Amino acid sequence: MKKIDKITPQKEDFARWYTDVIKNGDLMAYGATKGSIIFKPLSFSIWDNIRLNLDKEFKKVGVQNVYLPLLIPESLLQKEKDHLEGFNPELATVTEVGGKKLAEKYYIRPTSETLFGDFFKNEINSYKDLPLIYNQWVNVMRWEKTTNPFLRSREFLWQEGHTMHATAEDGKMLTTKMLNIYKNFVEEYLAIPVMDGQKTEHEKFSGADFTFTIEAMMKDGKALQAGTSHYLGQNFTKAFDITFKNKENLLENAYGTSWGVSTRLLGALIMTHGDDRGIIIPPKIASTQVDILTLFANKDERVEVVASQIKNDLLANNISVNLDESDKGAGFKAANSEIHGTPLRIEVGPRDLDNNQVTLVRRDTIEKITVNLEDVVKTVEKLLVDIQNNLLQSAKDRLKNNIVVVDNYEEFKVEIAKGHWVYAAFAGDGDDEVKIKEETGASTRCIPFVKPVSINSNKCFYTNKETNRYVIFAKSY
Amino acid sequence: MKKIDKITPQKEDFARWYTDVIKNGDLMAYGATKGSIIFKPLSFSIWDNIRLNLDKEFKKVGVQNVYLPLLIPESLLQKEKDHLEGFNPELATVTEVGGKKLAEKYYIRPTSETLFGDFFKNEINSYKDLPLIYNQWVNVMRWEKTTNPFLRSREFLWQEGHTMHATAEDGKMLTTKMLNIYKNFVEEYLAIPVMDGQKTEHEKFSGADFTFTIEAMMKDGKALQAGTSHYLGQNFTKAFDITFKNKENLLENAYGTSWGVSTRLLGALIMTHGDDRGIIIPPKIASTQVDILTLFANKDERVEVVASQIKNDLLANNISVNLDESDKGAGFKAANSEIHGTPLRIEVGPRDLDNNQVTLVRRDTIEKITVNLEDVVKTVEKLLVDIQNNLLQSAKDRLKNNIVVVDNYEEFKVEIAKGHWVYAAFAGDGDDEVKIKEETGASTRCIPFVKPVSINSNKCFYTNKETNRYVIFAKSY
Repeated sequence: MKKIDKITPQKEDFARWYTDVIKNGDLMAYGATKGSIIFKPLSFSIWDNIRLNLDKEFKKVGVQNVYLPLLIPESLLQKEKDHLEGFNPELATVTEVGGKKLAEKYYIRPTSETLFGDFFKNEINSYKDLPLIYNQWVNVMRWEKTTNPFLRSREFLWQEGHTMHATAEDGKMLTTKMLNIYKNFVEEYLAIPVMDGQKTEHEKFSGADFTFTIEAMMKDGKALQAGTSHYLGQNFTKAFDITFKNKENLLENAYGTSWGVSTRLLGALIMTHGDDRGIIIPPKIASTQVDILTLFANKDERVEVVASQIKNDLLANNISVNLDESDKGAGFKAANSEIHGTPLRIEVGPRDLDNNQVTLVRRDTIEKITVNLEDVVKTVEKLLVDIQNNLLQSAKDRLKNNIVVVDNYEEFKVEIAKGHWVYAAFAGDGDDEVKIKEETGASTRCIPFVKPVSINSNKCFYTNKETNRYVIFAKSY
Repeated sequence: MKKIDKITPQKEDFARWYTDVIKNGDLMAYGATKGSIIFKPLSFSIWDNIRLNLDKEFKKVGVQNVYLPLLIPESLLQKEKDHLEGFNPELATVTEVGGKKLAEKYYIRPTSETLFGDFFKNEINSYKDLPLIYNQWVNVMRWEKTTNPFLRSREFLWQEGHTMHATAEDGKMLTTKMLNIYKNFVEEYLAIPVMDGQKTEHEKFSGADFTFTIEAMMKDGKALQAGTSHYLGQNFTKAFDITFKNKENLLENAYGTSWGVSTRLLGALIMTHGDDRGIIIPPKIASTQVDILTLFANKDERVEVVASQIKNDLLANNISVNLDESDKGAGFKAANSEIHGTPLRIEVGPRDLDNNQVTLVRRDTIEKITVNLEDVVKTVEKLLVDIQNNLLQSAKDRLKNNIVVVDNYEEFKVEIAKGHWVYAAFAGDGDDEVKIKEETGASTRCIPFVKPVSINSNKCFYTNKETNRYVIFAKSY
């Protein structure tokens, strides 16, 4: 077992805290290629659980999984211009095989709209073939200049949904439906509350008519885009000549959407719940919900017997358990459980056993609860629910308390510098957004569907023009 | 809904039959890149079920899932020479990003022994850190010259397990354990019986001390390697300097294994069970176990009511169901169910309903069974078990009946030409294997752990030398 290094406190240096906890928490290792990371068992188990549970939600609305090739031929990517321009600088390119140059270049997919476009073209003849609601769980590559584990890496894992519809209305409805699935899933399983809304023209996906997003607030106040759902309209279907016979027997271009969440969610989870002791994994997504620690087992033979019994009882009640029977000291074992983010630990030691008791320690509040042996299972069940709820509520409170309304650019700068999200009337265009970002580091996160706080002014804080558009700005990951 | 094209009979042209059924059965489409395929929902659902169920078997023996990067830096792959030579001609190589040449080349993983080697190096200090039993479900790429959907494609999906052990014995035991998991899984879920054994030196994995394999027999008599488990010894741990302190406190190189099954299993499944009506999916791996077809629903309002009721009853009993309520004719609906390989279909029509009955049709035997409505669920449950067993038994019989013992090379050529597997004493070396393959198309498949048929001669059929080594030869995919 490894030593636990000192963790930089969040308030001292949030970025260093993040690096400290992901290393100490055995979440990742750096890969052989610069900017690449290895997902170790703990982080991958969270992603596995995200996949398993989110896929169930997808299936309920008729999503079917498929798998499309990794490589995009050069000719294919060039069919949709906006899209190509958006991704071109980040494209890892295969030019040779076994030392021999290829006739055509291939790009490692940064996303697969073009591959799906080419595929859909041959799958659709009539409105009766629609909708097609497909998804794939895959790796993608974007050769980013600066990288940050789980948040921005050259390769990441995600799911990308791609759909085709017979009407614009159907496509728009699906775009909304998938965003809602994301919002509900992220809140329910990851205990991350989000602001849902629409991206500005400047921030929308390259090739989309519009983009919906869910934005989460990290503990340092920065925003993290946690999932997006794009209405593509006929942009790709015209470029790829995807047509169908509609009910009037006329040829029409189909209407598309695409939507995805990625392993960035792991970063979001860490920075939403983690504290100076390490990460905290919400019980509903944890592969180990309870650590059972034996204390002074060499001095009292009851310890291992009771610990095993508790393990079996919990497993029988579908609670996932890890039993730490190592001969390490109590302090190390507790710190080891905490750094790995296990929601709850049970300490089984001689002194408690004299009273027919064990001690439960919540990871979120570090509260200790002494319970009689016969009450362990029901208490654990209750506490896991409490912990899940408490993590969500704390995050909700933080989100609510850190959104600030401003009237003018001076106030804006002050609030952004404080690490707040700013909510304001904004009539600016893309060029204004670029300037604001250069000067303050803040970008538009979304135009919320529901006002997060009350706002009265309809005068743009930046241009002074009148507007009914209210936008959230924040620094972001 | 698409038209169903004529399927070439298996006996007429097995290769065309294969192409016909995978296209008509909506299993795949060709991708935009030559040699690439798209896994459509039906084939991907089988792979999803393989992953889900095999992963459960892995977890029972302590396998942990991880994710390592897609790209291997040039310097890393060159560390193990045999390994590099084995894969070099097939390596897709990334040389540029966004049009700019990179300082170092990167290979898209053909397998990840080298990446795991580099990773393990930093994870292991003491024998207490061992074993490490890791696995990943990923895409890999080998730029094959000739391709065949699911069987040999430039990109495929697989799981690759990689482990580290403190002793050679532990490593060898794990190599055997994983092969047994494969053998049992493939037989139990895919209803594919296999011959398990060891590869010859000539056919073993590049970089392994030895390779264990499971070999399946397709309906045309060809062999298909369905899974392999390699004992790597210290080959990679020496190349990558992976050492640990053993119990005597001395530095020692760890002992490695790797093992994998891939989407080739889909090809194996199709060519083991399929018939001239299309594919047949064993019930335990089918995402749709029962198709319910409504017949003449426009003439009798009871039809849809009963069909829906049956659907709900089956779903309530954890049987997966698809309800085809389209207005197509009975013949089309039946053929459509058959081509997609659904193990069982239920035809709900007015005439049967007059007698309070429906008709069940088995996909494997095309046998029709008329049952009373109140007996549908229990009959379906029984038939699904019967179908699973029957598919396995038929394949077992075929395997047993098509392994032939030969004494000399003339007999060998005759039997191989007939499409049989040959079992024979063989003392030849790699050069002999190359010659035999050139002359007959047959390669050594394995040295079986258990003799599949009795054999007396210990004279090599090819070299006439005495030997106790008995080998299976066959043409293969």
